[in-house]
Amino acid sequence: MFRHIVLLAWTADATAEQKADAAAQLAKLPGAIPEIRHYEIGVDAGVNEGNHDLAVVADFDDVDGYLVYRDHPAHLAVITDYLKPILATRAAVQHQL
Amino acid sequence: MFRHIVLLAWTADATAEQKADAAAQLAKLPGAIPEIRHYEIGVDAGVNEGNHDLAVVADFDDVDGYLVYRDHPAHLAVITDYLKPILATRAAVQHQL
Repeated sequence: MFRHIVLLAWTADATAEQKADAAAQLAKLPGAIPEIRHYEIGVDAGVNEGNHDLAVVADFDDVDGYLVYRDHPAHLAVITDYLKPILATRAAVQHQL
Repeated sequence: MFRHIVLLAWTADATAEQKADAAAQLAKLPGAIPEIRHYEIGVDAGVNEGNHDLAVVADFDDVDGYLVYRDHPAHLAVITDYLKPILATRAAVQHQL
């Protein structure tokens, strides 16, 4: 298996609706990209200061499956239309699982 | 379940030995902290530019289990002795699973 993890932090002026839309649109991707084997989206619980706001952990059979996801038009559309407009910063790791 | 995700980026002068020690010391924590239900450590595969270097995804029964881990002396010792000396930056999210 091959895992992709991304943590996103939203801009200070992002609205609750924009944040909810971003998570909801990401949640549709497993229905559009069959290479996704497991997909977890989580909104930060607010336990610690300084955290990012949203987490995605996506598992694939292999790196090729991840690359299909990374470059998939449905994924790129979510990034362009829902993530980038409210994105302050992101951090990512991909690793063998 | 309650999930903790942290992505760590190392300083440019961190040695291969220091990076390996950091991962190896983290990998010992499930043996020291029984509240950890699942623990995955991954070294970034180098597929994308600009990534962080190491990922930890840790699952607990609930937020209280996570807090035991967060504040556990064995965890804090790894942070102080192995992570902070080579830490450039980190990103974290905790969320309900």
